[in-house]
Amino acid sequence: MDAVQKANSGHPGAPMGMADIAEVLWNDYLKHNPANPGWLDRDRFVMSNGHGSMLVYSLLHLTGYDLPMSELQQFRQLHSKTPGHPEYGYTAGVETTTGPLGQGLTNAVGMALAERALAAHFNRDGHDIVDHHTYVFLGDGCLMEGISHEACALAGTLGLGKLIAFYDDNGISIDGEVDGWFTDDTPKRFEAYGWHVARDVDGHSADAVKAAIEQARAETGKPTLICCKTVIGFGSPNKQGKEECHGAPLGSDEIELARKELGWHHAPFEIPAEIQAAWNAREQGAKAEAGWGERFEAYRAAHPDLAVELERRMRGELPADWAGSAAAFVQQTVEKAEKVASRKASQNAIAGYAPALPELLGGSADLAGSNLTLHPGSKGISREDPAGNYVFYGVREFGMAAIMNGIALHGGFIPYGGTFLIFSDYARNGIRMSALMKQRVLYVLTHDSIGLGEDGPTHQPVEQTPSLRLIPNLNVWRPCDAVETAVAWKSGIERNDGPSAFILSRQGLAPQQRDGEQVAAIARGGYVLRDCEGTPELILIATGSEVAIAAAAAEKLAGEGRRVRLVSMPCVELFEQQDPAYREAVLPAEVRARVAVEAGATVGWYKFVGLDGAVIGLDRFGESAPGDALMEYFGFTADNVAQVARDILN
Amino acid sequence: MDAVQKANSGHPGAPMGMADIAEVLWNDYLKHNPANPGWLDRDRFVMSNGHGSMLVYSLLHLTGYDLPMSELQQFRQLHSKTPGHPEYGYTAGVETTTGPLGQGLTNAVGMALAERALAAHFNRDGHDIVDHHTYVFLGDGCLMEGISHEACALAGTLGLGKLIAFYDDNGISIDGEVDGWFTDDTPKRFEAYGWHVARDVDGHSADAVKAAIEQARAETGKPTLICCKTVIGFGSPNKQGKEECHGAPLGSDEIELARKELGWHHAPFEIPAEIQAAWNAREQGAKAEAGWGERFEAYRAAHPDLAVELERRMRGELPADWAGSAAAFVQQTVEKAEKVASRKASQNAIAGYAPALPELLGGSADLAGSNLTLHPGSKGISREDPAGNYVFYGVREFGMAAIMNGIALHGGFIPYGGTFLIFSDYARNGIRMSALMKQRVLYVLTHDSIGLGEDGPTHQPVEQTPSLRLIPNLNVWRPCDAVETAVAWKSGIERNDGPSAFILSRQGLAPQQRDGEQVAAIARGGYVLRDCEGTPELILIATGSEVAIAAAAAEKLAGEGRRVRLVSMPCVELFEQQDPAYREAVLPAEVRARVAVEAGATVGWYKFVGLDGAVIGLDRFGESAPGDALMEYFGFTADNVAQVARDILN
Repeated sequence: MDAVQKANSGHPGAPMGMADIAEVLWNDYLKHNPANPGWLDRDRFVMSNGHGSMLVYSLLHLTGYDLPMSELQQFRQLHSKTPGHPEYGYTAGVETTTGPLGQGLTNAVGMALAERALAAHFNRDGHDIVDHHTYVFLGDGCLMEGISHEACALAGTLGLGKLIAFYDDNGISIDGEVDGWFTDDTPKRFEAYGWHVARDVDGHSADAVKAAIEQARAETGKPTLICCKTVIGFGSPNKQGKEECHGAPLGSDEIELARKELGWHHAPFEIPAEIQAAWNAREQGAKAEAGWGERFEAYRAAHPDLAVELERRMRGELPADWAGSAAAFVQQTVEKAEKVASRKASQNAIAGYAPALPELLGGSADLAGSNLTLHPGSKGISREDPAGNYVFYGVREFGMAAIMNGIALHGGFIPYGGTFLIFSDYARNGIRMSALMKQRVLYVLTHDSIGLGEDGPTHQPVEQTPSLRLIPNLNVWRPCDAVETAVAWKSGIERNDGPSAFILSRQGLAPQQRDGEQVAAIARGGYVLRDCEGTPELILIATGSEVAIAAAAAEKLAGEGRRVRLVSMPCVELFEQQDPAYREAVLPAEVRARVAVEAGATVGWYKFVGLDGAVIGLDRFGESAPGDALMEYFGFTADNVAQVARDILN
Repeated sequence: MDAVQKANSGHPGAPMGMADIAEVLWNDYLKHNPANPGWLDRDRFVMSNGHGSMLVYSLLHLTGYDLPMSELQQFRQLHSKTPGHPEYGYTAGVETTTGPLGQGLTNAVGMALAERALAAHFNRDGHDIVDHHTYVFLGDGCLMEGISHEACALAGTLGLGKLIAFYDDNGISIDGEVDGWFTDDTPKRFEAYGWHVARDVDGHSADAVKAAIEQARAETGKPTLICCKTVIGFGSPNKQGKEECHGAPLGSDEIELARKELGWHHAPFEIPAEIQAAWNAREQGAKAEAGWGERFEAYRAAHPDLAVELERRMRGELPADWAGSAAAFVQQTVEKAEKVASRKASQNAIAGYAPALPELLGGSADLAGSNLTLHPGSKGISREDPAGNYVFYGVREFGMAAIMNGIALHGGFIPYGGTFLIFSDYARNGIRMSALMKQRVLYVLTHDSIGLGEDGPTHQPVEQTPSLRLIPNLNVWRPCDAVETAVAWKSGIERNDGPSAFILSRQGLAPQQRDGEQVAAIARGGYVLRDCEGTPELILIATGSEVAIAAAAAEKLAGEGRRVRLVSMPCVELFEQQDPAYREAVLPAEVRARVAVEAGATVGWYKFVGLDGAVIGLDRFGESAPGDALMEYFGFTADNVAQVARDILN
């Protein structure tokens, strides 16, 4: 309450309401070592109701993480380690970035799933090297969000027994007492998902919380929801139990009264030494990790290759032979020169890379056969057998995205997951969170543009590709053929500071001719695919399925004596990261006659064609008809591209 | 199966599996008049598993809607009335566009909510003029989607007793038998929401379905889920019960066998006259509507004003005195010249317009006090009292959007709903569906840009505004002060062919000076706010909170003797719809020194500034800190804007 007051901004209600639960969990159960937040077998702790960040910061500070009191005093200030919501990468010990409700819970499902699969891959008889819990705090808001349904239903199906969730059942949300809009029988709902549920636990009774945790840990076949009855803003005599303590400082008078009520007689940010000592978990944590370390050395002695491999995977490093085998696959794809849909090329790439990359953990939101996310080595993960490498996510796009974030954050896997590009809309904030948290998550987004045909405008993503490009730190690839697809996958796998999305066609795409230098240039995001003698008078820029159309148009125009360059730009983000000289070499500033071609919303391309160029795209919804008919109807033909180019030139 | 076969594309499984249910519902219960799909008190029917569109088309054809067999033969062909998924506005009798799973169900919740509220507003003792059911078909996919949780939990809370849902429980989804990824105890889940549930109904037994419908209709205080055990692709001897009949034609051999199995001896698209006659519902429908018409005339006699008002509202026409009162409110806002946050200006606009507009049906996803969506005349809708005009949606952004679509489709209301702009991500595909269906739905999206401050990057929508602008047919308003906000609301209310989104600030925005012509020009989406003598040498373009910054920069530059024009562009979509002469008058082609300023992703602005201009924006995630500090840190200051302008000019 003091930090929120000092910042004059923030949420005291949840931290005060859940403090008693946190005290039990962190002091009596949580397996962690504050001196090493990266210990691979630590328990994961997630605060899904991320607005209660001050509780996390308090716990991290008290137990001895690298978070001095001075940082708590800088709550919500620029460049502090205590931002408004917990942010992964800012604060040692924060396992995931939370705030967008429901996603932390879903990340936790991903972490628990990763733990279970990793244990199945690496543990051996007598060596339970991977063996930790995932704990998650959540509030009413998380439970109202649809993603909680997606994640918790799947967690129940998969029997994630080491996932233990604490529901802060305080009966209050921002609009007031929840009775008017939230009347779920939550325990019953979770039982319907196959969870173990502890009902009516007094969240302010250490004994009650302990008993529930003990039961939860004993139930290894089901995830547990502990429903804790709590009082929001517990201890604030006039504001507890009311909405007004949810998202605003209590005020200094009320803080004074709360101090009295709680019997806390110390100044703000002052922790008596004996309390500091009682909370400090460094010694206990060092001991715990040392004990694990001994067991890990025994494991290493018994299974040296596995130990090295586990360490490699948890570091997020690619295998030593990756570079060679990946390059070989790209070369093989060049030689094959196959006409295939890029979704099929993507499947070939997965199949090509997977044998060298056991950390690939695939999946699809019930579209495996359409997204082509399965490869010959794929094996489903199930309740009975967690030793697989593929998750049948069901029709749960948003859940899939946020679960993949949890998997990536846990470590040991590179998750990829598929859905139709149009349904990236459903998953959008999860994709954003991958980018914000700089996680290596790979999105397989098939059936792009109007090219998918008959399913019609509800399924035709005319604005999704440019919309994904707007998300900072997301690489969006829209490859034009199998070779660009292979490079896209290679790039996504090698990228260790953010997610990539692969925008893939349903329909077949002819292979483009390239020399070695051009193949190498694909990774730059944009490159000259066809050129003319001398300075071009016109530049065509295209992506994906429109590259072949633009190439045919370029040929027509060349036949008419025009000096035309064709630039393929499969990944705008990477092209923009190239040095100015390279970009100038590809798109010389002096050439102002430029036409961009992409079967989607046009606005983004004006950055490259300017006020004097043209964009052939689609600023309206599509139609239901065979894909070829639509491409023609909407002007994605070589004739039309050539005509627009002539108009620009004349 | 014949239409899917002819199209060589589509989904036979659900139509064949649900045909028996549909037969009972449509022949024995559905209140409709095929000759008048607009009858206001018709039952609403929604096929939420929209890929089963051919079932809807069959039903519409058989019962006598304006959908001749020739259209069924043109399934999934360009400009047919039988697109791949049911599309509102294409086909008489299709109540909503479905396909994106879970949303049809949620639209149905909105329709049922609208029916209940409208009945409460308009029915009088002895005059149940508004009194119809909403029926919805749905599949496993709808139930896995998170939005089903949001919508159904709220439907239970609100006790929408006239909502009756049929779950096509066939155990199959695209990835195969659902046991591996969908093991919910669905009846228990829905009971936890407070629904009445009919379990284990044989979906191929007319008697069983009838009994369940009777029970459902008898239960008026709770929505009903009828869980129908069905066989996907029922009647196809080799493919029924398997995934392979879900989304691909059966093939002519199998169709032959299915004909035998079903005892159907007629050629494709041939319906024997007696069957045609037995299905035709025109006579029965005319009678039903005529009976209602008589009752409506009695109502009109007893309550003439209410009858006229109900008819007006169902036509979607604004009140006769709207134009005058709206103009007066805008003028009043001009005169007030108040510095307020645009979210507050939005609340003032709602309060200003609402008295003249009883069809406004507000709401917020648990952020009423932050979005400022309540006005003095707001009254919550509850289970006990449906006669309100405000829905407490809870933390359910996507559900809110799709429920609002259902409300708008039902008619009688203009729904508006609020959330933080960042969480438009959660609702995104619902917003898209508003646009695709051309519905008057108003989105109140507050806390825009980094200006919101301390909540940090998870809550700072740096890419959401440009991303929303990509959705075709959505008007995105980012007003710079109270006057632009008032005009934005007026424009959104008056627009009858699509949704509008209002992007609103948390922080205060100073009023801009305008003459009458400028006030009138706001509705054009972009206009000259400050000008210079003669042809400008530089144009600044800004929106929202950056307009004041750009204005200060313009003043600086003018002080240095520069001829600077400032264009405010609160609604890019409307500006682009202006005639070329107006656009040229605002942005003369000859002036190439242009700088756009908006605290968000920059790419969209290059369309206006070209290759020679500059955009001051934010192509990265924000930070947690006070809003003013962030604006300065990221360069949204008059000094920086002026400096960038000087660089461009020199």
